[in-house]
Amino acid sequence: MLFFDHNATTPVAPQVAAAMDAAVREVFGNASSTHRTGQIAREHLENARATVAKFMNASPNEIVFTSGGTESNNLAILGLIRSRKGRVVSRKGRVVTTAIEHPSVLECCRQVGAYMVAPAERIWEFVTDDTVLVSVMHANNETGSIQDIAELARRIRERRAAGQEIYLHSDGVQALGKITVDVKALGVDLYSVSAHKVFGPKGMGALYVRRDVPLAGVQFGGRHERGRRAGTENVPGTIGFARAVEVARENELHAGELRDYFEAEILRLVPDVEVNGASLPRLPNTSNLLFRGIAAEALVIALDMRGMAVSTGAACSSGSVEPSHVLLAMGRSREEAKSSVRFSFGRYNTRGDVEQLVEAVVSCAGRLRRGRSREAQLVS
Amino acid sequence: MLFFDHNATTPVAPQVAAAMDAAVREVFGNASSTHRTGQIAREHLENARATVAKFMNASPNEIVFTSGGTESNNLAILGLIRSRKGRVVSRKGRVVTTAIEHPSVLECCRQVGAYMVAPAERIWEFVTDDTVLVSVMHANNETGSIQDIAELARRIRERRAAGQEIYLHSDGVQALGKITVDVKALGVDLYSVSAHKVFGPKGMGALYVRRDVPLAGVQFGGRHERGRRAGTENVPGTIGFARAVEVARENELHAGELRDYFEAEILRLVPDVEVNGASLPRLPNTSNLLFRGIAAEALVIALDMRGMAVSTGAACSSGSVEPSHVLLAMGRSREEAKSSVRFSFGRYNTRGDVEQLVEAVVSCAGRLRRGRSREAQLVS
Repeated sequence: MLFFDHNATTPVAPQVAAAMDAAVREVFGNASSTHRTGQIAREHLENARATVAKFMNASPNEIVFTSGGTESNNLAILGLIRSRKGRVVSRKGRVVTTAIEHPSVLECCRQVGAYMVAPAERIWEFVTDDTVLVSVMHANNETGSIQDIAELARRIRERRAAGQEIYLHSDGVQALGKITVDVKALGVDLYSVSAHKVFGPKGMGALYVRRDVPLAGVQFGGRHERGRRAGTENVPGTIGFARAVEVARENELHAGELRDYFEAEILRLVPDVEVNGASLPRLPNTSNLLFRGIAAEALVIALDMRGMAVSTGAACSSGSVEPSHVLLAMGRSREEAKSSVRFSFGRYNTRGDVEQLVEAVVSCAGRLRRGRSREAQLVS
Repeated sequence: MLFFDHNATTPVAPQVAAAMDAAVREVFGNASSTHRTGQIAREHLENARATVAKFMNASPNEIVFTSGGTESNNLAILGLIRSRKGRVVSRKGRVVTTAIEHPSVLECCRQVGAYMVAPAERIWEFVTDDTVLVSVMHANNETGSIQDIAELARRIRERRAAGQEIYLHSDGVQALGKITVDVKALGVDLYSVSAHKVFGPKGMGALYVRRDVPLAGVQFGGRHERGRRAGTENVPGTIGFARAVEVARENELHAGELRDYFEAEILRLVPDVEVNGASLPRLPNTSNLLFRGIAAEALVIALDMRGMAVSTGAACSSGSVEPSHVLLAMGRSREEAKSSVRFSFGRYNTRGDVEQLVEAVVSCAGRLRRGRSREAQLVS
């Protein structure tokens, strides 16, 4: 199988698998136990935290480990809003988010009750004196489009300097490991990441919480993670996450070269193809292509039968009959959205793999279009 | 290091470690992806679910995988109560729980707002026509005491038959793998379990949700786990959990023999020792001993220095200066609670290990008491 769906998940890096296997066998203590077995686990946990923190230019005590990107987004949004419970806040426009967010952000905003979904490029216009939280994805999972988080953060800091209590959360699940993530340079208050998107383990994520940002827990119990996330710490998972970010540095360049080669070849060889989000800054590894006149689902299946994994969009809404809410928000029609396929490249893809992919896409797209025009002839 | 703190966590079984390592390296797909890589992951996930379900005598679609016991308890309690949002329920006594529960149950009940904490042995007296949820631990983590869940379930079914909408949740985190857990025979509606307490991986748990029991999600996002738990599925974790329950069957008997031997020896060799919870049915692996006149913390440290891991109680409240809420609820004084040490045995402990432990406890307890009486002489 050739895998070109790295925005859905990534294979675990061999170095990560080895580190986790050693940890699973040897570091089994409960990090909250006071005896030596527990303290050894605690030491590993804190080392992992320091490594993950450093990769994002955060301080270790600004990192809360979670069970993944979805939990990180839940903790950021619900945790921030719940920390304000009891204070007088206008309910109108309390949270402002964009139309291209991941379902975990959109659903959390829905839970909060009072939120507004703005077009990503005009989000600033929707922020008012009542806004407490702005949540904007750093890089989009479907198209790879990158938002100018630093500029947004600058404006939010201005409001804060003028006395408004307002915070910025960014879902960085797709950005981490693909572009430089420096939470201080970005100026965010909360930033979500996930290990399995950076060749690390599943079931492991983190939330950056800038010092001084109020946050209530959303999972209740023991006082783990400095009272911000109850539950016995998944120490081997954190060790895997740390190892993953340590080996992540070379990924960006390599996947970018493959993506550029792939896109140029497809645009050269297949007629009526457009790049979704081409006019925006994009992740270097992601190519979301609109194949006019082709059902994306059919192309995905045809490629799968040739042993190549690509997708119509987010895995977590796969099986849905609805077209991508992200592409609709970017101005595509329902028909266009349903003709769009996402290719996302990663560290272990080779030039040879991508050459095979190009050949397969050219051949499948041609066949699907010929089939369709034959159908049209039969009907007419 | 000799490890006698299996109620805090367990070493990962070698069979589990091997299964997880293979899964981490080979089964990396996102179980929600439609392509083959995703579908292979999905198949493994559903096989793991079937194995875990079978071990508890549940149906696979009654099992929701979570990130651990704490999340399972959160999902059970908050999920059930939130599923009733909008219906008219008296707020008084909405949830009834016991004084010996794990912090994750007590904290969730506190979140619900209207709850009552009853003595475990008299919980039935606190259940009223307003009660929607009763949450009672199957086996206690500190003393190992076992509650008569089946009898409670029978009474709750009677109320339900009479028209009351009332459900029973049981925290089975400590029971699983130590005594037989058959959710149908118990008659529970919701039952929480955790993998790392049964020689499985950390960061992995499950909630049994009986068919027809209403449950809202508590983590929002994609529609994973049939809409009951958002977040990319931790497939290698579920594989590890499944392997853990497959190898769990022999644990009970072995740990029970060691515990009985240990307790008999300590009671024979050390004066002024009492077994906490001796009059109640107990987990076979757990021994919670009150050493009169000895600070539990000092005994734990002395044993740790000899390479033996035991604990003063729950790991998740370690470091706390407060005495165990469980022992206080069972009628022990603060002083008695602070003189109590938990020994919990497990599969890889040998008779030789326990002989060493007995010797160390006898010697440390003697030394600590002599130190104390010397102090008393010096003061007088």
